[in-house]
Amino acid sequence: MTLKTKLLTGAHPYDGSPLGGHWAFRAHGIQGDSLLAFMGPCRVAVEALADLQDARDGAFIYSPLMLHCVLELFGPGLEEAAARQWLMAATVAEELNARLKAVRVRREGNDLFVASRKLSVSIAAPTGVSVKVHLGINIDATGAPVPAAGLRDLKVEPRSLAQALLARFADDHARLRGARTKVRLYP
Amino acid sequence: MTLKTKLLTGAHPYDGSPLGGHWAFRAHGIQGDSLLAFMGPCRVAVEALADLQDARDGAFIYSPLMLHCVLELFGPGLEEAAARQWLMAATVAEELNARLKAVRVRREGNDLFVASRKLSVSIAAPTGVSVKVHLGINIDATGAPVPAAGLRDLKVEPRSLAQALLARFADDHARLRGARTKVRLYP
Amino acid sequence: MTLKTKLLTGAHPYDGSPLGGHWAFRAHGIQGDSLLAFMGPCRVAVEALADLQDARDGAFIYSPLMLHCVLELFGPGLEEAAARQWLMAATVAEELNARLKAVRVRREGNDLFVASRKLSVSIAAPTGVSVKVHLGINIDATGAPVPAAGLRDLKVEPRSLAQALLARFADDHARLRGARTKVRLYP
Amino acid sequence: MTLKTKLLTGAHPYDGSPLGGHWAFRAHGIQGDSLLAFMGPCRVAVEALADLQDARDGAFIYSPLMLHCVLELFGPGLEEAAARQWLMAATVAEELNARLKAVRVRREGNDLFVASRKLSVSIAAPTGVSVKVHLGINIDATGAPVPAAGLRDLKVEPRSLAQALLARFADDHARLRGARTKVRLYP
Amino acid sequence: MTLKTKLLTGAHPYDGSPLGGHWAFRAHGIQGDSLLAFMGPCRVAVEALADLQDARDGAFIYSPLMLHCVLELFGPGLEEAAARQWLMAATVAEELNARLKAVRVRREGNDLFVASRKLSVSIAAPTGVSVKVHLGINIDATGAPVPAAGLRDLKVEPRSLAQALLARFADDHARLRGARTKVRLYP
Amino acid sequence: MTLKTKLLTGAHPYDGSPLGGHWAFRAHGIQGDSLLAFMGPCRVAVEALADLQDARDGAFIYSPLMLHCVLELFGPGLEEAAARQWLMAATVAEELNARLKAVRVRREGNDLFVASRKLSVSIAAPTGVSVKVHLGINIDATGAPVPAAGLRDLKVEPRSLAQALLARFADDHARLRGARTKVRLYP
Repeated sequence: MTLKTKLLTGAHPYDGSPLGGHWAFRAHGIQGDSLLAFMGPCRVAVEALADLQDARDGAFIYSPLMLHCVLELFGPGLEEAAARQWLMAATVAEELNARLKAVRVRREGNDLFVASRKLSVSIAAPTGVSVKVHLGINIDATGAPVPAAGLRDLKVEPRSLAQALLARFADDHARLRGARTKVRLYP
Repeated sequence: MTLKTKLLTGAHPYDGSPLGGHWAFRAHGIQGDSLLAFMGPCRVAVEALADLQDARDGAFIYSPLMLHCVLELFGPGLEEAAARQWLMAATVAEELNARLKAVRVRREGNDLFVASRKLSVSIAAPTGVSVKVHLGINIDATGAPVPAAGLRDLKVEPRSLAQALLARFADDHARLRGARTKVRLYP
Repeated sequence: MTLKTKLLTGAHPYDGSPLGGHWAFRAHGIQGDSLLAFMGPCRVAVEALADLQDARDGAFIYSPLMLHCVLELFGPGLEEAAARQWLMAATVAEELNARLKAVRVRREGNDLFVASRKLSVSIAAPTGVSVKVHLGINIDATGAPVPAAGLRDLKVEPRSLAQALLARFADDHARLRGARTKVRLYP
Repeated sequence: MTLKTKLLTGAHPYDGSPLGGHWAFRAHGIQGDSLLAFMGPCRVAVEALADLQDARDGAFIYSPLMLHCVLELFGPGLEEAAARQWLMAATVAEELNARLKAVRVRREGNDLFVASRKLSVSIAAPTGVSVKVHLGINIDATGAPVPAAGLRDLKVEPRSLAQALLARFADDHARLRGARTKVRLYP
Repeated sequence: MTLKTKLLTGAHPYDGSPLGGHWAFRAHGIQGDSLLAFMGPCRVAVEALADLQDARDGAFIYSPLMLHCVLELFGPGLEEAAARQWLMAATVAEELNARLKAVRVRREGNDLFVASRKLSVSIAAPTGVSVKVHLGINIDATGAPVPAAGLRDLKVEPRSLAQALLARFADDHARLRGARTKVRLYP
Repeated sequence: MTLKTKLLTGAHPYDGSPLGGHWAFRAHGIQGDSLLAFMGPCRVAVEALADLQDARDGAFIYSPLMLHCVLELFGPGLEEAAARQWLMAATVAEELNARLKAVRVRREGNDLFVASRKLSVSIAAPTGVSVKVHLGINIDATGAPVPAAGLRDLKVEPRSLAQALLARFADDHARLRGARTKVRLYP
């Protein structure tokens, strides 16, 4: 299934609810595998966290302005979703470093850092009907609960970054889905 | 299952046969999910290609010396293997650029390039009992069938790179496998 | 994944080999989920039969001219393929009866009959990388090993029937694949 | 697993709740794969709809009297359930046209029509423990929210139709389940 | 994934809630595949029963003191969990009979009996993110709703039994998981 | 699917070939999930071994007379098959000890022992279309490559044991398959 991508206009706060199943369809009329990007503040209360480790730690997630990417895939399990999530993080780092012409953004698992400051938050979660990935990239990191950096610190324009990411993810998705259709069994 | 890693000593030619099921066990006594790295020439005949597109194109794969990484996973399907394959490629690019302190290696899908010269070959294939990934990084690119670069051009020592990659892949594997055990259903 | 359809020109004999994995890609350069239709004689030797019951019975399959539909799907298991196979048979019966403006073609499982004469042969089989369905509709039933009818008896033009079937199957495929992306969990 | 079938006596209204997991067991003591048929009015409120497209459209479903078929399968995914759903619709059309000795009922996807009037409603949905299919055939179409026809218009007796459908579905189920046990791998 | 085992100290009542997903992590900080054993009273109200047959029968489960084993596996389906559940029951019987040097404990499915008295209760249930097994072995069977026996009747010390079971289950788990990594395809 | 059982008459040597897919159907006309028991010598050459560890060790399997049980299941994966294999071994031990009225047969994983002498051989293997389990119980252990015991040493009549095992396995199979149809989601 083709990945449908859309960069939403306007500001959309992120509170965790876009992780729910069929969010793209319910909220934006986009049915099927999709990747939506949008900008807005991020505030996820402890009780809305999908990550049980964070919830045990009493963590919360906050940023006054983030670039959010929300992926929904119908079919794969959570381990495939996690691999896709890490690949998204790697791709963001590649795009940023290519723009900055220097190795400034570093990936650890699904987290991105600028030196020791956290640039992103991310989670992959099952919905019962699909798997979801949220990748939030700080634009403005003021007030984040941990030392953090944002796209403004890197002087990267979020909108054009978002467009580049959506194009690249859609192309990657098609190529990953096509992978099994051209490889023979190697017994 | 923990990913068992091993950097083989000595030179081992790669002819496609390590893509076969249970190769790590049959050839090296390593049972279960594994990632083996080794150095040696690479020569895969058309009839040994897993990639049907390459086989249709009459392609062959050759390098006088490569660093080979061969991953075998029991359980996942080919699409999860493809995502893991791409993540391996991204990780190699990250490790190289970090060592070079510059964005010199670029990833396109599962291929790595130094400017327009190809640094790597890669395939993910099913065996009937497992999925396999081969990622070969040119050390010496002399005589490759396409414009190619190697680790020698980048002045990167393959053995220490291999050790860093094995450590990172094993850690990533454990974290990816653990992903689903700490995320609640988000309906 | 979109179902790629093609009506091949010229005559192509059917001997069972199109049931093999990646046949559409190997033989016709069509990668991914596909449905190919073509006309040609049908002769499947006992040793090439996928159906073990037929093979035990020493059956063989013969028709001097058939309209063949060969479906390849990457992902589903054999039971889903069997349901799709039956649906293909039902759709062929519907299209024929609609053209004939009478209930002349009857479906039993995946077999089609005109009165008590057999109009079709069909099999669904796994390849190790995909599942395949072959549905062959007699055009000329002369010499078939059982009492048989053909499209010529029904005065139905095979080429326009093939075009209608390809269009309908492609549309059905997209709608079936989309089914799970718009239905919520009903606990 | 054998499909257990039962034609319930008396009138049973349909409000969407039979789509829930284990409904046949909870409500009627029938455990395992099952197909229950019953007659009764149909009224599904927007908030009880499983189809998110219908829910977005503010649709509701109403008929004063329908023949309901509720299938529950343990094991298959939603795509297999959708193929089975379409096959059920095709079978109903075949049975009706055979009785009417004319092509009066036409199938589009999982919908049945008499000329341009809708004869049926249908949904396939996951429960978390099983997949369900509801196929409702209007007996009396008075007051339906769209132009509709019913079995009374066709002068078809619902009870004997129901018995024929249950017998045929049970037989089809056994043959579909058996399909993979007699087909060899065709590599 | 290695099975993490722990014998909890102190008394812990069992009310059904340990069947929930991620219970070992939420309640005891143990992430991943796990088997926890603990002692405590058992009282499961009808509405907390996972077994719909028991719930229909209005059954309840009670024992003043049980040895509880709670297994959580991420990945397998309910049928694999049921086979593991039966194997756990068989293993408990083997350990008890070995200690008693006589065939006193008998297994029927997943139930254990001492003559005609019930020694255990057990359920396997899905959580949406994992599968769970609860196996409760009566220590004191006073007041149970059916004729029952307990470890005290057998003069078996529960703590040392628990330790033996945890060790054996962990070893079995590793060997079962390893099974597919050393067996070739046998076509 | 019901497990079809049959105790073959006459002597049938075991050379590994009954592990192949559809063996019960090809050799004995029994289609679907099945468990066949028969008596005969056992001699499996190294190259016919499914167990790669045994093959690496140059092991061979020999017994002049064994009771063989060959299970074929369509649908489950190898890990579920391994759990079923262990459960079969546990059941054999239970049946033997019950007949012997003493704990003489001991299970380790899927192996059975009488004191330190091996009573059985067993393997679970995938066929590409199904999973198979072979459990061979020595009747006469003369000439076995390791210290071994047989049913004759235990004075157990193999034919009546076989009948008891077939009945019990068929009943267990139905109950295990039914497990998921009566347990609700426990979130």
